[in-house]
Amino acid sequence: MQGGTMADSSGPVWTPLVVLELASDTAEEAVTWLLRRIRDTQHNGGADLLVEQLGLGVETQKKQNPNLFLVGASNQRLLAGAEDVGLFKEYSDGSMRGFTCASKHNFKDFNGDGDGFLSMAECQYIIKHELDTLRAKDETHVPGHSHAKLYPGKSIIRRLQSKGILIQMFPLHEKEELKRLSFSWFKKLKLSLQPLDDIRHYYGEGQALYFGFLEYFTFALVPMALIGVPYFLFDWEDYDKYVIFAAFNLIWSTVILELWKRCSASLAYRWGTLSRKKAFEEPRPGFHGVLGFNPVTGREEPTYPTAKRHLRVYLVSVPFVLLCLYLSLYVMMIYFQMEGWVLSIHDEEPTFWTGILLFIPSIIYAVVIEIMNLIYRYAAEFLTEWENHRLESSYQNHLVLKVLVFNFFNCFASLFYIAFVMQDMVLLRQSLATLLITSQILNQIMESFLPYWLQRRRNKKMIRKVQKRATLQDKELPLEEQVRLEADMSTYLGTFDDYLELFLLFGYVSLFSCVYPLAAVLVVLNNITEVYSDAFKMCHVFKRPFSEPAANIGVWQLAFEAMCVIAVVTNCSLIGMSPQVKAYFPESDTQLILWTVAIEHCLLAIKFILSFLIPDVPKQIQVKLARLEFESLEALKKKLKATIRATWALITPEQ
Amino acid sequence: MQGGTMADSSGPVWTPLVVLELASDTAEEAVTWLLRRIRDTQHNGGADLLVEQLGLGVETQKKQNPNLFLVGASNQRLLAGAEDVGLFKEYSDGSMRGFTCASKHNFKDFNGDGDGFLSMAECQYIIKHELDTLRAKDETHVPGHSHAKLYPGKSIIRRLQSKGILIQMFPLHEKEELKRLSFSWFKKLKLSLQPLDDIRHYYGEGQALYFGFLEYFTFALVPMALIGVPYFLFDWEDYDKYVIFAAFNLIWSTVILELWKRCSASLAYRWGTLSRKKAFEEPRPGFHGVLGFNPVTGREEPTYPTAKRHLRVYLVSVPFVLLCLYLSLYVMMIYFQMEGWVLSIHDEEPTFWTGILLFIPSIIYAVVIEIMNLIYRYAAEFLTEWENHRLESSYQNHLVLKVLVFNFFNCFASLFYIAFVMQDMVLLRQSLATLLITSQILNQIMESFLPYWLQRRRNKKMIRKVQKRATLQDKELPLEEQVRLEADMSTYLGTFDDYLELFLLFGYVSLFSCVYPLAAVLVVLNNITEVYSDAFKMCHVFKRPFSEPAANIGVWQLAFEAMCVIAVVTNCSLIGMSPQVKAYFPESDTQLILWTVAIEHCLLAIKFILSFLIPDVPKQIQVKLARLEFESLEALKKKLKATIRATWALITPEQ
Repeated sequence: MQGGTMADSSGPVWTPLVVLELASDTAEEAVTWLLRRIRDTQHNGGADLLVEQLGLGVETQKKQNPNLFLVGASNQRLLAGAEDVGLFKEYSDGSMRGFTCASKHNFKDFNGDGDGFLSMAECQYIIKHELDTLRAKDETHVPGHSHAKLYPGKSIIRRLQSKGILIQMFPLHEKEELKRLSFSWFKKLKLSLQPLDDIRHYYGEGQALYFGFLEYFTFALVPMALIGVPYFLFDWEDYDKYVIFAAFNLIWSTVILELWKRCSASLAYRWGTLSRKKAFEEPRPGFHGVLGFNPVTGREEPTYPTAKRHLRVYLVSVPFVLLCLYLSLYVMMIYFQMEGWVLSIHDEEPTFWTGILLFIPSIIYAVVIEIMNLIYRYAAEFLTEWENHRLESSYQNHLVLKVLVFNFFNCFASLFYIAFVMQDMVLLRQSLATLLITSQILNQIMESFLPYWLQRRRNKKMIRKVQKRATLQDKELPLEEQVRLEADMSTYLGTFDDYLELFLLFGYVSLFSCVYPLAAVLVVLNNITEVYSDAFKMCHVFKRPFSEPAANIGVWQLAFEAMCVIAVVTNCSLIGMSPQVKAYFPESDTQLILWTVAIEHCLLAIKFILSFLIPDVPKQIQVKLARLEFESLEALKKKLKATIRATWALITPEQ
Repeated sequence: MQGGTMADSSGPVWTPLVVLELASDTAEEAVTWLLRRIRDTQHNGGADLLVEQLGLGVETQKKQNPNLFLVGASNQRLLAGAEDVGLFKEYSDGSMRGFTCASKHNFKDFNGDGDGFLSMAECQYIIKHELDTLRAKDETHVPGHSHAKLYPGKSIIRRLQSKGILIQMFPLHEKEELKRLSFSWFKKLKLSLQPLDDIRHYYGEGQALYFGFLEYFTFALVPMALIGVPYFLFDWEDYDKYVIFAAFNLIWSTVILELWKRCSASLAYRWGTLSRKKAFEEPRPGFHGVLGFNPVTGREEPTYPTAKRHLRVYLVSVPFVLLCLYLSLYVMMIYFQMEGWVLSIHDEEPTFWTGILLFIPSIIYAVVIEIMNLIYRYAAEFLTEWENHRLESSYQNHLVLKVLVFNFFNCFASLFYIAFVMQDMVLLRQSLATLLITSQILNQIMESFLPYWLQRRRNKKMIRKVQKRATLQDKELPLEEQVRLEADMSTYLGTFDDYLELFLLFGYVSLFSCVYPLAAVLVVLNNITEVYSDAFKMCHVFKRPFSEPAANIGVWQLAFEAMCVIAVVTNCSLIGMSPQVKAYFPESDTQLILWTVAIEHCLLAIKFILSFLIPDVPKQIQVKLARLEFESLEALKKKLKATIRATWALITPEQ
């Protein structure tokens, strides 16, 4: 395991799992208090975890933060925590069951005292949960920091986070595991499926589902790409033949989304997150308000009136988003003016340079869109923070919605304008190609190469520093330097941006596929590089993220399905506008439109019926889940009947 | 309580709850065996219930079936059964919780030994459940009936039912309760809301939700009716002004359906069915197949390959339904020919009689539709039975779908044809009025007066017979005669037909409201009489049905929502076709259609967003449910921690 155990420093022999970094100006008494609370037994309201301060390096440097703490736990404590968080593990009969200490020996791979039964990611998740639920008792504030108010039941870690005393909390990488994972993931040359189980083992279900979806999505696009190539090769200008392609596309995208649900359910079942119940959600660290009582838990916590939040959402956020959409529309109009201007120059005196000039507006527009997306993203985060949502999930939903709407509008408005207002299919195809290629290149640079380059520079500096001071026998860094190195790595901000990118790519493929069949090919190529660059950045650029149990891709499934519905509408319209179809209704446009609308409605109806008919969870897994539920019900009943019989025996003589 | 206790006959003092009627040719040994199995203790695999044969009347008649049995149970047995079926009752703190015998004294209204704690309907439901789950042990067939095969774990009652040995099983009415209920429900002259809690108390949640929905639906239609009246009075021929009415209608129907969900959740919470878990479903009595093992329970039971069922559904049922739809279309065409023929006669030589003749085709068509619906209904039941569904719920879903599609088509095809093919708004209005009024009158006759008249004749015969033989001191019938009387009453076949009627009425109101605003008024009037006639038939015409726990109106919510979506499409088209709107686009039809389609798409989008934004369960009840779940989780955790601490203490010294 990475860095070995804590045996080399003073203290007991245990594996450090999570790092806490406190601000360097934290009061001494606050540190002592926190460590005591973390170490205290659960009986005394502590977390019952192991914690040690990180040794101060090879030589104490003023610049380095001394307040780095390593947190771990005994095996017994971790197993108890696993039961606490409701972890599902494989049972001896192959089914997935909620782990309980009482039945631990019936679980597969549980040997002796259970060493190695939990993966490191699971241990880290448990420690995070235990730290998060470490609550204040009768403290009124953090010792030495009177502005950091506490009240009985308040999560200590969340308060420290919101007051900036706790700078970060992150799990440690496992060097050996990571090497093995990155080899099987992207370093070996043989093309193969991603090692999803290993990814889940190291990063947790949320990450693994993202990579699973990325892989699934790529494979699902292959048929479209294969059909798209001949269209591209032989019928480049004959875009009215794309009718069949579009029809295939529509049904295909509905089916793949429905099948993904089943696929995701299978994965989630295998990983034990499908039937896992969600724990009660704590308020997010940034949530503030007047101290009151939570109506559910009865605990003291900040309260914030829902009406006030609604006012903020509907009177500030919604108008702001609409304003941004208007601005985006304005920029789009400028783009079209530029486009017209460049075209007029080229038409006047066509040279090689004016030929290149033709592409300039599109490229500029693509860059501007990316910049606007970035700025808007910050604004959206600020606004959503200001809306003061109580739960992290509600915060995330509002943020996703804001960002999705704007990104969708920004990326596709110009294409809609070209397609339905200008009705210029050649320009549409050209814009689509430019947008798709530019945004892909930009994304790859922003997402992987830039962070990688920054990280590399930082790493080199650190290694050089270490090498200057000590000659290392083996190439491995000592634990302490490793911790400092990881503390400096960028923080992975979740799968949001990765999903957003896939969502927009899906939009390019599905919305206008009948005009530019090559889109699927480009997206497939992009996805393949995406797998590698995402895998690389997960392994080498970012801090290890805490694993997040997830049963599905959540709100993104909904977003992809909504895109699918919009795709039906756009594709039907495009088909209706194609010369080939128009030729069938030579005398009247009205007939053509009515037919198009009728077919569109039928397709939408078929879509909804299909998504209703295909069960979301494969039959086989439904049966397994039902069996588990049935067994637990039967066990309960048996227990009940025994109790009743006993009670009866007690009561009957009295009558 | 009705008929008093069993004290007047021989045997112990207990209240008869449920009646079992076995075929008169049942073998003596079968009866003895069944009674023994019902009376046997649960330890021996029996149901531990009380059962007595009904005395043979004032004088033994050959014609009367002697095999009537009364089933009851001791108070303790009923309470244990309540825990078994997972009944929710009001706790001392006002919340609804699953009843357990261990915590029985913490429940509201639980006094002494719990007499009167369970309502009679609940007791009857418990007895039905206990009888249904009375399973064969090692019997290979019912004694004396070698064709009624049994295998370990087979529900005895279901086998007896499917082999025709058990003719019927029904709960008894409570004379006093029924009098009180019918007075507060429909007999008192003051107009008031229905006593939903009393209805639920007497008939169970399924029935109460139907009447709740009927009442809600009626009130929801009142605004539409009020707006419709002035349209009718002042603008009769000016149907192009109905645009505003239609727009109001669309939003209104979406909102009322969403609000009903919340309303239904409130009712279900109050009645304790909202968070109740569904028990494992037994195969329905008619299900047959090769004996195999259920993959979920591991019990022996008939199995039938899903693929074979799919073949039956898709290769026989679906084509049959399509054929019926075609037939219905054919009948419709004949109707229009008749209509044209009558019109030509009237135009040739208009007299008073030809004026009346004008209405004849519509009336005939309405009658034919009702007859076709009736015949189709039998065919659908036969087909769905033949599809051999394992579960009652799956059987019901397939049946509802078949019947819904046909009824929808049958009732509305002609209106669609008139509206969109003939584009004759005057005829549409006239047909709508005729269809609505005719079908209402027919329904009232078929549903209430006919069964009432039949029942009355039967009752009179019975009472006359009784009076001939004995002079009664009080007007009340002795228990035995009462049981025989109820055994002869018609069986209530569930809320299916009632909901179907509401569904079609909703269709008339929402699909074509902009042409005939008076529809809402007619439906409101119909609903008011419907409440009274339904209440009356529940109380006086039918056997008491077993109460059925229900948390919502199930598949009907979906059906009403689908109707709402179709209504958006039809109303937008009607509005687009109105002269007033056409006047805005004098030169081009294309523009008009495009605008209509765009607005329709926007309305549909708003509809979906609205239904997404309005939470299905009111906030207040969400909080209550969350609190319950949180409390049970906390209790579990506390118990866990204690166990862990104990285990730890045991383990630690060993290390």
